[in-house]
Amino acid sequence: MPIDWDQRYAQRVQRIKGSAIRELLKLTEMPGAISLAGGLPAAEIFPLEQIQAATQRILAQRGQQALQYGATEGYTPLRDLLAQRMTAEGVKVTRENILITSGSQQGLDLLGKLLVNPGEPWLVESPTYMGALQAFNPYGPEYVAVRSDHEGIVTSELEVALQRHPRGMYVLPSFQNPSGVTFTLERRQQLIELAGRYNVPVIEDDPYSQLRFEGEPLPALLALEHARQQEKGSGDQIYQGNVILLNTFSKVLTPGLRVAWIVAPAEVIRKLTLIKQGADLHTATFNQMIAYELTREGFLEEHVPVIRALYRERRNAMLAALEEYFPDTISWTRPQGGLFLWVTLPEGLDAAQLLRDALEYRIAFVPGAAFHANGGGANTMRLSFSNVNAEQIEEGIRRLGKLLHNRMLHS
Amino acid sequence: MPIDWDQRYAQRVQRIKGSAIRELLKLTEMPGAISLAGGLPAAEIFPLEQIQAATQRILAQRGQQALQYGATEGYTPLRDLLAQRMTAEGVKVTRENILITSGSQQGLDLLGKLLVNPGEPWLVESPTYMGALQAFNPYGPEYVAVRSDHEGIVTSELEVALQRHPRGMYVLPSFQNPSGVTFTLERRQQLIELAGRYNVPVIEDDPYSQLRFEGEPLPALLALEHARQQEKGSGDQIYQGNVILLNTFSKVLTPGLRVAWIVAPAEVIRKLTLIKQGADLHTATFNQMIAYELTREGFLEEHVPVIRALYRERRNAMLAALEEYFPDTISWTRPQGGLFLWVTLPEGLDAAQLLRDALEYRIAFVPGAAFHANGGGANTMRLSFSNVNAEQIEEGIRRLGKLLHNRMLHS
Repeated sequence: MPIDWDQRYAQRVQRIKGSAIRELLKLTEMPGAISLAGGLPAAEIFPLEQIQAATQRILAQRGQQALQYGATEGYTPLRDLLAQRMTAEGVKVTRENILITSGSQQGLDLLGKLLVNPGEPWLVESPTYMGALQAFNPYGPEYVAVRSDHEGIVTSELEVALQRHPRGMYVLPSFQNPSGVTFTLERRQQLIELAGRYNVPVIEDDPYSQLRFEGEPLPALLALEHARQQEKGSGDQIYQGNVILLNTFSKVLTPGLRVAWIVAPAEVIRKLTLIKQGADLHTATFNQMIAYELTREGFLEEHVPVIRALYRERRNAMLAALEEYFPDTISWTRPQGGLFLWVTLPEGLDAAQLLRDALEYRIAFVPGAAFHANGGGANTMRLSFSNVNAEQIEEGIRRLGKLLHNRMLHS
Repeated sequence: MPIDWDQRYAQRVQRIKGSAIRELLKLTEMPGAISLAGGLPAAEIFPLEQIQAATQRILAQRGQQALQYGATEGYTPLRDLLAQRMTAEGVKVTRENILITSGSQQGLDLLGKLLVNPGEPWLVESPTYMGALQAFNPYGPEYVAVRSDHEGIVTSELEVALQRHPRGMYVLPSFQNPSGVTFTLERRQQLIELAGRYNVPVIEDDPYSQLRFEGEPLPALLALEHARQQEKGSGDQIYQGNVILLNTFSKVLTPGLRVAWIVAPAEVIRKLTLIKQGADLHTATFNQMIAYELTREGFLEEHVPVIRALYRERRNAMLAALEEYFPDTISWTRPQGGLFLWVTLPEGLDAAQLLRDALEYRIAFVPGAAFHANGGGANTMRLSFSNVNAEQIEEGIRRLGKLLHNRMLHS
């Protein structure tokens, strides 16, 4: 008799759940469908020629190294380059503060393994990035979810939550996935002050801050934390704060390379390196070299504005269509950057049910419930504007608006 | 005051240990050193031209797909190709039985997360692959180590160990890392019979079986398990056994691509896919496409014999040098394939201490203790012959032999 696998899985596997939504979304692969669901970058502006040239150069000049086993910490020139750039922007770090990861998703997994203790409180936003919950879940946190409003995490509620002494907190302060919300400078400063007072590690997930369409850039939490440490210390020191930053090439270059990085105090990087060694030995050196070549040459300084301009146009198209086609009782965020916006339907309207209908009209989005660690959000939805053109956006929102008008007429 | 990180780490981090040996081995990067330590393939025969051609083709024809986010399960044509090849060899599987991983190290991590329960018995060989211990350790197994001899795992002792009802077992039956030992057919059959009787999942790590220099190929445990299931069932069925196989392109193509795969019953693959989604979303599609292109074209059928011939020559050089330079009281394995052989020093001679002396003579190897889950093996060492030429091997073994003669004279 074949083995009964369900009986063989470790207890933690009970916490690892499939997403019914993800199954539904497979339907969006049918021709003619318009997907506002996935968080995919626009593939039509991937810099294929530049990547082609870089791969040829790498294979010709350093092919053996590119394809051999490499150091778990990452490709040294890339770590040095990332450290130099960060130092030039005012946060003094060296390669010892940088670990290259196989995408930021791996960073979340490694940090879950490092910091999350089963059954102990772990603080997240509500809503928060679904992939972070997927990374942390196997490690068994008891989530404490703190509400965000249009200025970011609500710091008065954060302080109450911190009194439960969470093991750490996870936030995505710029153009959040899923909400598109950006923490104001004041909220950022308050968060850093509170995290310091309660002595709580902060994971700052920062994939989107470079994709700002309008408004003034804001400092990363890690930069504010560094400044706070400098004030208290003796000045010009290497970063030693309680914020751990996740950054990535996925949104400014291409996601398929799977190259991202963690910035943290050197002792944290050393521990994460040991954990990564057991998790996948190292990130492909070839892929790291491609990211290195394009970054070193200054290519991103040309390329990121191209991405920004395209996403700005698409966000504008989506905001205009929402204004035109959605009922007045529905509200949405107006993000200044990133890939997403967030829609709140009237109470009692279920976005998952709406998706089932929408799929019949060949239009997809992600219902908001999955972004809530402790339930709620049934009347919310995430719309992505990055990987659909303006015509598709208008048509998609038009169809959705029609559905919503019908719904609200009959409810 | 900066945070006290040691106080913030999860309890499982106590089980994640750095290797003092790894620190020592950094010394082998000095010029003139001969390293018999690392398990690195020979980079001078990496097929750079073929990889160059494949990358150009991929970027020209399917560049956007190669660099976009991809499915967690892996690139469908690659999964299909691997399934077809396995089916042609007699084990009926489909893509549903295959998950692409970021190297086999990730496969070990995903399987640890799936199967290892904290504090419960988990069976490994003694010695066993150090990287597997690193992958499993965070999940908290209580190791039960079963001795191997020159025919592989000692099945009489395995049966006693199985009476402790381990959650699963991990074995590397062909040209084992570290010992070079290959399980005989009889031991393979006994293991499968015992695992079936005790209803225990078996992880079969199989990176080296293609690298056989001499002797007859032996069936994988998974193939024997499949045959056993077929006999009991109604014939021609899709694989449904209790063996999970790890395979990889690292040793037959290049390790730096970080592309490997797991073969398992479809329900196990579905669970592993959910776990991988939280761990790194997916393995770089670009890298999978490179492996796919070279495999599809039949390139591995040309290339693997080149690797075999080179490693055979190097193994021969090492065996000849050991015969010439090592004292008579020392024994070693004579592997018929793979990258490693295993040396047993007289009792009381400590290989870690020998390494310290050897490094002064600019020669490195890996002391055997780290390959033992529950201690022991202080008088053993792993020698790798894959990434050093015949002259380096002779010179390295000569220096080591001299040290050993001195040691034994003065002890």
